[in-house]
Amino acid sequence: MAGGLRVAVGGATGNVGSEMLRVLEGRSFPAADVIPLASAASAGQRLPFRGSELEVCDLAAFDFRGTDLLLLSTGAANARETAPRAAAAGCIVIDNSSAFRMEPDMPLVVPEVNPDALAGWATRRILPVANCSTIQLVMALKPLHDAAGLKRVIVSTYQSASGGGRRLMERLLSPYDPVTVDMHGLLREARAALERGGEKPLPFNVVPHIDVFLEDGRTKEEWKMEAETRKILGLPELPVSATCARVPVLVGHAEAVTVELERPLSAEAARELLGTAPGVRVVDERRPGGYATPIEVAGTDDVFVSRIRQDRTFPHGLALWIVADNIRKGAALNAVQIAEALLLSGDVFRGNTGA
Amino acid sequence: MAGGLRVAVGGATGNVGSEMLRVLEGRSFPAADVIPLASAASAGQRLPFRGSELEVCDLAAFDFRGTDLLLLSTGAANARETAPRAAAAGCIVIDNSSAFRMEPDMPLVVPEVNPDALAGWATRRILPVANCSTIQLVMALKPLHDAAGLKRVIVSTYQSASGGGRRLMERLLSPYDPVTVDMHGLLREARAALERGGEKPLPFNVVPHIDVFLEDGRTKEEWKMEAETRKILGLPELPVSATCARVPVLVGHAEAVTVELERPLSAEAARELLGTAPGVRVVDERRPGGYATPIEVAGTDDVFVSRIRQDRTFPHGLALWIVADNIRKGAALNAVQIAEALLLSGDVFRGNTGA
Repeated sequence: MAGGLRVAVGGATGNVGSEMLRVLEGRSFPAADVIPLASAASAGQRLPFRGSELEVCDLAAFDFRGTDLLLLSTGAANARETAPRAAAAGCIVIDNSSAFRMEPDMPLVVPEVNPDALAGWATRRILPVANCSTIQLVMALKPLHDAAGLKRVIVSTYQSASGGGRRLMERLLSPYDPVTVDMHGLLREARAALERGGEKPLPFNVVPHIDVFLEDGRTKEEWKMEAETRKILGLPELPVSATCARVPVLVGHAEAVTVELERPLSAEAARELLGTAPGVRVVDERRPGGYATPIEVAGTDDVFVSRIRQDRTFPHGLALWIVADNIRKGAALNAVQIAEALLLSGDVFRGNTGA
Repeated sequence: MAGGLRVAVGGATGNVGSEMLRVLEGRSFPAADVIPLASAASAGQRLPFRGSELEVCDLAAFDFRGTDLLLLSTGAANARETAPRAAAAGCIVIDNSSAFRMEPDMPLVVPEVNPDALAGWATRRILPVANCSTIQLVMALKPLHDAAGLKRVIVSTYQSASGGGRRLMERLLSPYDPVTVDMHGLLREARAALERGGEKPLPFNVVPHIDVFLEDGRTKEEWKMEAETRKILGLPELPVSATCARVPVLVGHAEAVTVELERPLSAEAARELLGTAPGVRVVDERRPGGYATPIEVAGTDDVFVSRIRQDRTFPHGLALWIVADNIRKGAALNAVQIAEALLLSGDVFRGNTGA
């Protein structure tokens, strides 16, 4: 590790990859070399970094020998090929896709929530990053579980377009630019597009469908939230159910969460607990504006918790509103935090530069 | 009733009032005279109706003697003054505001759900219309309750700007017209506005706050959904909890609903039951696009139910996605349907024209 780490960022031109570069820039992460990797089509492109520029290399052709860390944010299909290849070359891989999250011998870590799970890194050298919606959920659930025991979790998401990539963000903006918005025209166009068998529009709409449908009627996004939450919290039997919807928001996911607890916990006590939890910020003033919304949290690191109140449908129930930047804490930041935790945990990076 | 009814529409220039005029036009409602009423500022304005034009009269100065029916859609404060005045003049009032919904001697009727409650109309001659979000919820809950017994209901709403009135719709559209949209500019402006203590923006945002805050941390919108659902279903002890959020959608409210039932009911059985329920349309194909979204249901009468699936957090749980036009079934249409049900129920309108 002399002189710092050699760090590759896979998928560096995407939403999450470019945020990973910004997170590396903004934190004192000991990266001596940073190599952005992307598709062959993007190779040669230059990206700004720490006042200078980095040249994008071809991910498919990249030789990972001598690279300590790969922060990977391509799709799951690419990750299934790239991550094992990099790990075999001696690299530690932190992968943002869904490819490996449920592998029993790969720790799924949110550093503030289950840092002890990190110890399992060495078996496969691949550390998956949880789903963006899951990360912000477990950040708020953990302190409640420690205090009063989670019995049941029901969550509805309000997910922004950024989670679906740059193209979805562009599609959200496209109807407004540069033409004048005409509501009836928009509705007419949307219906006409649907009648032609087109995709459901996102502008001025809500789409209850993220990722593919499973046989039982859930979407894979909903299944991810349920399965990953159980894995991260180490509660394999915890009943969790999710409804995941895309809303016409650019950045920032929101979640309406109802929990049943084993033991009583007042809204006031929950507010205090969450207020001292690392990485969590409570904004909960029970007055107009006294709560967090996606547009305000975009670009920030914390998970914001608002609208903390007693839920009356359970003997010991609480309701919460959770908002976070899905690209930062939901992805890029969490990946870098995992690497930082590995660094702190001792002699993980074997200084294989030049090996 | 000879020659049809004399019908006044209060708040006729608003979102719901103007939709009431369109609903009266589109259905074979026996209105001989239709009188649009609004504030003094709007008096004299002419509104199109059945190929002709109607002149708006001043609501505050209007003499309700001789008017059979008032379809009222002003705010709650105005309704508390206007509705009793009209009722005292012999008029039957169907009021869309929240002013009277929880009055024990005023029936809160969704005609497909609890038509028997209509019988109580004569005591006060004021029939409140339930909250838009409540109406679409109970339309889907009733068939499930009849089949398997509701034990618990948890709902998260995705409510459109139209429920907040014309001005909120204009505020949602304003950033895009006529300037070119710039995402970073929008975020910067939104933050600057917030720092100046401004309201949370709705464009590209989600706001978990509708109506005023109550002491226990719920909003009044959330309380309304809980209390009104119990009243309409006739289940005063039913545990219901709601999180109500405004999303940047123009028309159409969506709801993610989780129910616990007393007895088992498969998703397939629920789909069949809902498919035959009056006023409910099931769109649930478990494939991309095989579900309803707000933009498609705008302007239609039905309550759409999608994403019907087993919920695993309860022994007998179901999850649903409910979407409806909040201005039509959620307000204007439901009001006219209440009047139609009164007409069918016998000699309610005493033909007081000229009385």
